Amino acid sequence: MTKSFLSHLECPKCNTTYDADTLQQLCTCGAPLLVRYDLQSAASTMRKEDLAHREPTLWRYRELLPVREDENIVSLGEGMTPLLRLPKLGAADGFENLYLKDEGVIPTGSFKARGAAVGISRAKELGVTTLAMPTNGNAGGAWATYAARAGIKSYIIMPVSAPTITRNECAITGADFYLVNGLISDAGKIVGRAVSKYGWYDASTLKEPYRIEGKKTMGYELAEQFNWEVPDVILYPTGGGVGLIGIYKALLELQAIGWIGEKLPRLVAVQATGCAPIVQAWEEGKQESVFWENAQTIAFGITVPKALGDFLVLEAVYNTNGCAIAVDDEATLRAQHRLAQLEGTFVCPEGAATYAAALLLKEQGWIKPADHVVLLNTGTGLKYPDTVTVTVDTLQPTDDL
Amino acid sequence: MTKSFLSHLECPKCNTTYDADTLQQLCTCGAPLLVRYDLQSAASTMRKEDLAHREPTLWRYRELLPVREDENIVSLGEGMTPLLRLPKLGAADGFENLYLKDEGVIPTGSFKARGAAVGISRAKELGVTTLAMPTNGNAGGAWATYAARAGIKSYIIMPVSAPTITRNECAITGADFYLVNGLISDAGKIVGRAVSKYGWYDASTLKEPYRIEGKKTMGYELAEQFNWEVPDVILYPTGGGVGLIGIYKALLELQAIGWIGEKLPRLVAVQATGCAPIVQAWEEGKQESVFWENAQTIAFGITVPKALGDFLVLEAVYNTNGCAIAVDDEATLRAQHRLAQLEGTFVCPEGAATYAAALLLKEQGWIKPADHVVLLNTGTGLKYPDTVTVTVDTLQPTDDL
Repeated sequence: MTKSFLSHLECPKCNTTYDADTLQQLCTCGAPLLVRYDLQSAASTMRKEDLAHREPTLWRYRELLPVREDENIVSLGEGMTPLLRLPKLGAADGFENLYLKDEGVIPTGSFKARGAAVGISRAKELGVTTLAMPTNGNAGGAWATYAARAGIKSYIIMPVSAPTITRNECAITGADFYLVNGLISDAGKIVGRAVSKYGWYDASTLKEPYRIEGKKTMGYELAEQFNWEVPDVILYPTGGGVGLIGIYKALLELQAIGWIGEKLPRLVAVQATGCAPIVQAWEEGKQESVFWENAQTIAFGITVPKALGDFLVLEAVYNTNGCAIAVDDEATLRAQHRLAQLEGTFVCPEGAATYAAALLLKEQGWIKPADHVVLLNTGTGLKYPDTVTVTVDTLQPTDDL
Repeated sequence: MTKSFLSHLECPKCNTTYDADTLQQLCTCGAPLLVRYDLQSAASTMRKEDLAHREPTLWRYRELLPVREDENIVSLGEGMTPLLRLPKLGAADGFENLYLKDEGVIPTGSFKARGAAVGISRAKELGVTTLAMPTNGNAGGAWATYAARAGIKSYIIMPVSAPTITRNECAITGADFYLVNGLISDAGKIVGRAVSKYGWYDASTLKEPYRIEGKKTMGYELAEQFNWEVPDVILYPTGGGVGLIGIYKALLELQAIGWIGEKLPRLVAVQATGCAPIVQAWEEGKQESVFWENAQTIAFGITVPKALGDFLVLEAVYNTNGCAIAVDDEATLRAQHRLAQLEGTFVCPEGAATYAAALLLKEQGWIKPADHVVLLNTGTGLKYPDTVTVTVDTLQPTDDL
């Protein structure tokens, strides 16, 4: 039987360690906790060849996920999403090796399913019965969905301007959910007060340690899909940044067990010009970001004025010789159309922003034509009906084309 | 190198055969053509064990798909969708072995991606540059998407009442698309006239032979996911019925190559009471259906008043000791909620109809509690924002829960 090598929890800021088998939220110092594994034992027992016979979900990396017992796994078949070549777009715009990791092909239609699957599984294992969280939409939809499957009660709060389709996921799965006249940071404050008052589990971004473990599987999958040769550049649309932190963590874990070599991809944090706190911090060489006032972008999922894990995002970018870059909404919409028309990939605005960024970075010479470049598309464009302008003629049955 | 065992095309009505390597539409007798393979050679060379090392897409069944050269494969990573157990719902409603095959987790969010991937790949291989089709929404979205990836021009016509999100897929991928004040049958007539006039490829349901080859892979996958022991009952939401025809065809092919035994699942054609031509035909013991007047149901994808392949659907139902059954919209919506709340599976109305049907058939004793029952969910509920009623309170940032 395959078992988890889960060892303990550790604060990346003050290095305090915590027991992984009792419920934990943040470190007493206020920083998010990271999950640690017995990577030495993992290195001596895990073999790449074993993966071939496992199911095409993120649970194929069972040993490096934090769930102890199989019976606690709450799954809807998430993970092992397609890695697509984009040959026509690449040829048109001068990328010789352009790829899209398509997180639209996953339950709930967004990469948030990964964090929810692993986060909810572990919450179930540790006896959580009620959780609460703020969300920009997709995370709430995903956590409500997996909570329903687990039989856990969920309270979800999202901004009134979050994508309306994500409301459906919360409503139909029976979550107790609310809108707030404000940003995700306002929703977060309401959740904070409720958690204190009622003793619920706080499932806010990085306030529990396990969501990142789900997200990191994007890094494992990319390494496996590139046959354990990592690409040169990964562009990631960065709001809370958990995916980027997770991918970096995954790559370090793969190095530790000897499955990949020294080389790491350069990680790029892509933000919108209307909300770019990480970019600002990176340009100033800072280790943390400053709250971004009046945040606004059509790439709603990355409207995060100040991320709790900003220092981890910046660390990942600095340590991989990556960068942070902001793109405007117009460039994002152009990129979304171009991806769809040339490659049939209907990505979400956040995913499209990564291609707008790739174009800028190639113009600057930061991306070379021969680089293996991965755009991380965090969700399907289907969930954002209002970002596509449709003009269409209506025919009568007797009309001809 | 893995090659296709594609042999020829055959009319299931008059048995006329056609060359598979030139473009064909319907048989001269008016019936749809089926694709035939050299199953004897397939049986002697294909081994189940080879599949373990193949990618988790429908292309893992490469030998039994109609594309000759790998370079013509147009893929977005479709197939090998999750087969989910539904233990809580099953326990609540008296099914001991209830499963959902979730075609929501696929590019374009619906099973139409399968037909489009294989249909477009083969169209590309045979030199098609322009195609046209009528659609109830999802097929149009999928074919527009894969046509864009292939570089094929597409004309798509859908009823004004088709799900609005599917318009986005056609618009953003650059299809030439139109609405029609009428049903899919009206759209079909306009396409028919245009095809005659301009010489385009007619990609209407079953008017080209390859869409069914994509759909049949649902049957291969179910057999593989059940470890080559087929389930007892498969419930399929039936409009054009291509998926049901395809699953039946796949099972016969698997029998022919010796990968499954004598037993076949009983295939159930599920329709809506507002459009149930197949059910009517089955109840009357007929081999063909009669055009259903004033068709109307919230399960829009199965609003097909008269399917070109009705005789093939009925044949599959009769030959497997299956049945055909209609459910009303109210039962479908109830089923959709129940699936989401107990299992976190947010299915489309068509998929939900299969569970409403399963409940009826269990009540009638036609499904036994111990039967292995598969609900085939043809798409994600995310594409149907209007079928979910959302009532939600809006908080101010200073409010408390």
